[in-house]
Amino acid sequence: MIAPRYDFASDNTAGCAPEALEALVRCNAGFASGYGSDEVTAQAADLVRAMLDADADVRFVANGTAANCIALAALARPHEAVVAHEHAHIRTDETGAPGLFGAGVGLIGLPGRSGRIDALALGKVLAAPDVSYRQSPAALSLTNATEYGTVYSAGDVRVLTGVAREHGLSVHLDGARLANAAAAGFDLRLLKGLDVDVLIVGGTKAGMTPTEAIVLFDSKLSRRFDARLKHAGQLTSKGRFLAAPWIGMLQSGAWLQRARHANAMAWKLAETFRTRTPFALAHEPQANALFVSMDEPALQRLRDRGVFVYRFLDGSVRFMCSWATTEEAVEELGDSLAAIA
Amino acid sequence: MIAPRYDFASDNTAGCAPEALEALVRCNAGFASGYGSDEVTAQAADLVRAMLDADADVRFVANGTAANCIALAALARPHEAVVAHEHAHIRTDETGAPGLFGAGVGLIGLPGRSGRIDALALGKVLAAPDVSYRQSPAALSLTNATEYGTVYSAGDVRVLTGVAREHGLSVHLDGARLANAAAAGFDLRLLKGLDVDVLIVGGTKAGMTPTEAIVLFDSKLSRRFDARLKHAGQLTSKGRFLAAPWIGMLQSGAWLQRARHANAMAWKLAETFRTRTPFALAHEPQANALFVSMDEPALQRLRDRGVFVYRFLDGSVRFMCSWATTEEAVEELGDSLAAIA
Amino acid sequence: MIAPRYDFASDNTAGCAPEALEALVRCNAGFASGYGSDEVTAQAADLVRAMLDADADVRFVANGTAANCIALAALARPHEAVVAHEHAHIRTDETGAPGLFGAGVGLIGLPGRSGRIDALALGKVLAAPDVSYRQSPAALSLTNATEYGTVYSAGDVRVLTGVAREHGLSVHLDGARLANAAAAGFDLRLLKGLDVDVLIVGGTKAGMTPTEAIVLFDSKLSRRFDARLKHAGQLTSKGRFLAAPWIGMLQSGAWLQRARHANAMAWKLAETFRTRTPFALAHEPQANALFVSMDEPALQRLRDRGVFVYRFLDGSVRFMCSWATTEEAVEELGDSLAAIA
Amino acid sequence: MIAPRYDFASDNTAGCAPEALEALVRCNAGFASGYGSDEVTAQAADLVRAMLDADADVRFVANGTAANCIALAALARPHEAVVAHEHAHIRTDETGAPGLFGAGVGLIGLPGRSGRIDALALGKVLAAPDVSYRQSPAALSLTNATEYGTVYSAGDVRVLTGVAREHGLSVHLDGARLANAAAAGFDLRLLKGLDVDVLIVGGTKAGMTPTEAIVLFDSKLSRRFDARLKHAGQLTSKGRFLAAPWIGMLQSGAWLQRARHANAMAWKLAETFRTRTPFALAHEPQANALFVSMDEPALQRLRDRGVFVYRFLDGSVRFMCSWATTEEAVEELGDSLAAIA
Repeated sequence: MIAPRYDFASDNTAGCAPEALEALVRCNAGFASGYGSDEVTAQAADLVRAMLDADADVRFVANGTAANCIALAALARPHEAVVAHEHAHIRTDETGAPGLFGAGVGLIGLPGRSGRIDALALGKVLAAPDVSYRQSPAALSLTNATEYGTVYSAGDVRVLTGVAREHGLSVHLDGARLANAAAAGFDLRLLKGLDVDVLIVGGTKAGMTPTEAIVLFDSKLSRRFDARLKHAGQLTSKGRFLAAPWIGMLQSGAWLQRARHANAMAWKLAETFRTRTPFALAHEPQANALFVSMDEPALQRLRDRGVFVYRFLDGSVRFMCSWATTEEAVEELGDSLAAIA
Repeated sequence: MIAPRYDFASDNTAGCAPEALEALVRCNAGFASGYGSDEVTAQAADLVRAMLDADADVRFVANGTAANCIALAALARPHEAVVAHEHAHIRTDETGAPGLFGAGVGLIGLPGRSGRIDALALGKVLAAPDVSYRQSPAALSLTNATEYGTVYSAGDVRVLTGVAREHGLSVHLDGARLANAAAAGFDLRLLKGLDVDVLIVGGTKAGMTPTEAIVLFDSKLSRRFDARLKHAGQLTSKGRFLAAPWIGMLQSGAWLQRARHANAMAWKLAETFRTRTPFALAHEPQANALFVSMDEPALQRLRDRGVFVYRFLDGSVRFMCSWATTEEAVEELGDSLAAIA
Repeated sequence: MIAPRYDFASDNTAGCAPEALEALVRCNAGFASGYGSDEVTAQAADLVRAMLDADADVRFVANGTAANCIALAALARPHEAVVAHEHAHIRTDETGAPGLFGAGVGLIGLPGRSGRIDALALGKVLAAPDVSYRQSPAALSLTNATEYGTVYSAGDVRVLTGVAREHGLSVHLDGARLANAAAAGFDLRLLKGLDVDVLIVGGTKAGMTPTEAIVLFDSKLSRRFDARLKHAGQLTSKGRFLAAPWIGMLQSGAWLQRARHANAMAWKLAETFRTRTPFALAHEPQANALFVSMDEPALQRLRDRGVFVYRFLDGSVRFMCSWATTEEAVEELGDSLAAIA
Repeated sequence: MIAPRYDFASDNTAGCAPEALEALVRCNAGFASGYGSDEVTAQAADLVRAMLDADADVRFVANGTAANCIALAALARPHEAVVAHEHAHIRTDETGAPGLFGAGVGLIGLPGRSGRIDALALGKVLAAPDVSYRQSPAALSLTNATEYGTVYSAGDVRVLTGVAREHGLSVHLDGARLANAAAAGFDLRLLKGLDVDVLIVGGTKAGMTPTEAIVLFDSKLSRRFDARLKHAGQLTSKGRFLAAPWIGMLQSGAWLQRARHANAMAWKLAETFRTRTPFALAHEPQANALFVSMDEPALQRLRDRGVFVYRFLDGSVRFMCSWATTEEAVEELGDSLAAIA
């Protein structure tokens, strides 16, 4: 029997990049005040602000589910709803966590090709009159890069947040894979002008140990935010360990460079699919994920060769690349794919 | 101006012990399946079970507040209450987090000397008849070592959980400083026979990066526990980074040895207080914390010398030692204390 | 301009039946102990038990949304889900209330013709393996009569609850219109054998002032249920006013007889539609509701004539009859319908 | 054995006053639109506004616990706290309901003689710095008449809400017994100028069937308030039945007059205590409640004579009068009290 390989199963099956690990080791010296009041955290927050060219409060938490849910709870009241793509992670893969942190806050799913919300569909939902028997929209949640490996441009985001703002909504941006979007050309310095209230910047999938950054563009959200984190089980005593990897990745430029590598590996894999296999791409590969049409017997043959990958809600099979994906691994996978085709 | 020193402010101001850090670095190699299904996590769980000599499910989460609150939510329904010492961390320092995770679950405070629950007071509260206008007790929450640096013996726990069981309560044990209790003589292998349903074993304060172990002694709690964690924002994708420090600390015996050191430092500091200062000990120092009577002017003079420590709810001032506290630091602190006395 | 008429808009636009009102007036004499501990409540609970020929705990609450949500919160944990018809009231018209009472509990929608859950679809959902990133089913919620005016037979319920029980689910039955189901032939005395854990019996729509009965067939749910009600804002101090209408309606037989009348009016209206209009019935009228295909201009013409009715999620227009619907009103509505056709 | 009498146990053991019942019967005619959009509700809301001489949104709900908790959830976020008298009903008698509706919102208890919050104690709590590990105050909750039968004057309220406003808090006023406060001289028309954001006006205890009015003085709270009610299980389909009693009681002036009677009965009973018994009054009787010092054997003798009353948290025994308390009943009770003294 072949040991299963997880390197294409997700971008969280990789370890952390050397830059992150080294910074984590480095930060370990000496004593530091707790709960994010330390200098390591201050420096990491500065680096996030510099990357975004924005004056915004930054917090580091250990978990992406929590980061997103805490943000949503800050933007929508329990009797209101968050509007998101119907296949957004918060709707499909978080075990209903928004409902716990948001005391039953609603989630309205919107259609849209390849994980991008359709602006007309958004406008239509927001134009519906408020009624007391439904949770009316209070916030828009975007994901960039999307669940299907596509990328919103700043203009795309602008259109959607513009519609949202017209209807009085706040905006949340789930950037678990923001590094991959940036590597694909999304200009982070434009974000501050795109009417996003809360941004989650992904650290874990970008090659760090478990850590995500919460960026509060809307300064009104800052008051008592640490209390909000503590109440939600996300204020970390030894906060420096959540902050240090950011210093390592941002100071060195690795956060972006390694995302570029991940994207390049996905594009290389896309080329492999096109040239060596009959499996069609289901979505345009703009970031680090590849989705292909593959019937169940073929998927089973692939799994029999030890390759562990997931079938997604749209029926396609996902192959995910990360900072740690090697050219050799892509070629090896190519061989397996050619063999099972 | 003197830079403030935090080494006696808490046992979470220290970094992590070399054994934990090395294991964390070591676990980084290669790819691993996510969400706690990896081999590092399996091995760490085995080591926790071995330490407890118990067949129990083990999970690792990144945050102690969340670990305790998720446990309590599993043991008490929202219209019921958890009984805990009136100064228990969950009652006084967690920003009401039990109420979020437990949908409004109640917390009943009990008196008791030096952080230990008084068994008679417990019995009296549990003997009160159920009424519909109050949240009646469903779970007992103990803390060992206690908030005031004292330690329950196995027999002490037995008495309290016995009273709890008689009244149909479940039992939670907050072991954020269980290592210090063990170092003070609390036999961990007896725990499985003490009617504890869920135990939280502290990793962070014991010298790790942020990680806590949830031990489910009651196997009925295991079903869908990962979903419970995910719903609560505590299922970590790169789970190996929460598990690895446990391997480093438990395999080497450092978890216990470094707690012994922390306790020894507290005892040494106690001796310093007794011999060189007029400040009386407020509680018997059994673990790694020292509480002393100190008036406000004296505390201010100490702070002026850069020593950052907290005044507690009982009015005393806490000095906390950790795995990283050095003999030199204790002596240096002794000098400062003698000077301000 | 014509004053709008609401008599076909819902069965909650009617007042309460004389039998209910008289009992309410009657119960007003003298003093009574509070919170459901009074003799009026005891007598009403006895009558509900007698009607169901079942030994079950009975509580009366003032609100159907709350009654259903409290029941669901008792059957499914926050990280689990309730399975219901995709158009069930709890999913579509309760403003996400299950999520507040259930701390984020999930709701999984199932397809099925005319509001009846498809047993195969149920089986398929329940056969899916538990995964930690989704809320797995813990309870089945049925509605009888259904949202589309159809009725489950005891055998139908048996099939569905049988599938549910095989997979370890609990069962909730929303009987907001149970009287109409009973009037259509559903034998209430069989309910106790159909594996229903909690039943909500509708009082409001059956012709009472606001009151619903919660019936706990599963005796394990009874413990601390009053505390659960109080915690959820549904333990009423002057409980007799929620109970008295039940005495009036059940002792006299009016609960069933008036539902028979409502059903008969719907059937009469169905006949009107068939014979005098081109509007086709969208669902078989088995209880007190009628759903018809009607395009927007026709609906607008009807509204211009003062008839206020709703378009439903399946696109059809609903006409609802109640205990107070008169033959004259049906005929008058028939004239309007004929005129706009 | 003597049948227990409940007429002094609470003011919710009485039925409803004729004016309320007649209005309720009267409103029953015809059909009405649902969920508070009907004309009965509109008229009742107008009458409440007229009574308060204020332009404010008014809603009617069926339950006082829910009314208060929904108000508090609108004023304080889950990681914040509500400040209230330590013996306030929301803290001591609501089974933790604020925590469900407020997703774990905190409750801070303040001392104060006879149920009135001590302004200095309030100022001290509000002057404490925000820390992330505690729920900091966001709202002040007052109760008038208080739990101990005393009454805040407009000036008293002004002082407390002034302190609250200085610190940025919102204000909730629990007026379950506002009628009794008004009857004791509290001028309702001043309320609009006292910085109260949400007021609950008690209907139930004032002699109605179960109904409470929520008054939103702060118009910013009105948006989506019906959705908030629905989400919390408190939007009533047949809303007219919650509104009608208000018409009966307010149009006739009975709301105030019957409260005057209740207060007068309490004062008569106070006189009885003073002249015929050795039991000292524990609080000044300003409204409809009387609290007396009575040892356990005496209380037991009273219960043996069938008089059901409660011992309160301050140790005293409460005798409550209502609109339905008769002079004969007071005299009869006086005889019993004299006999057991």
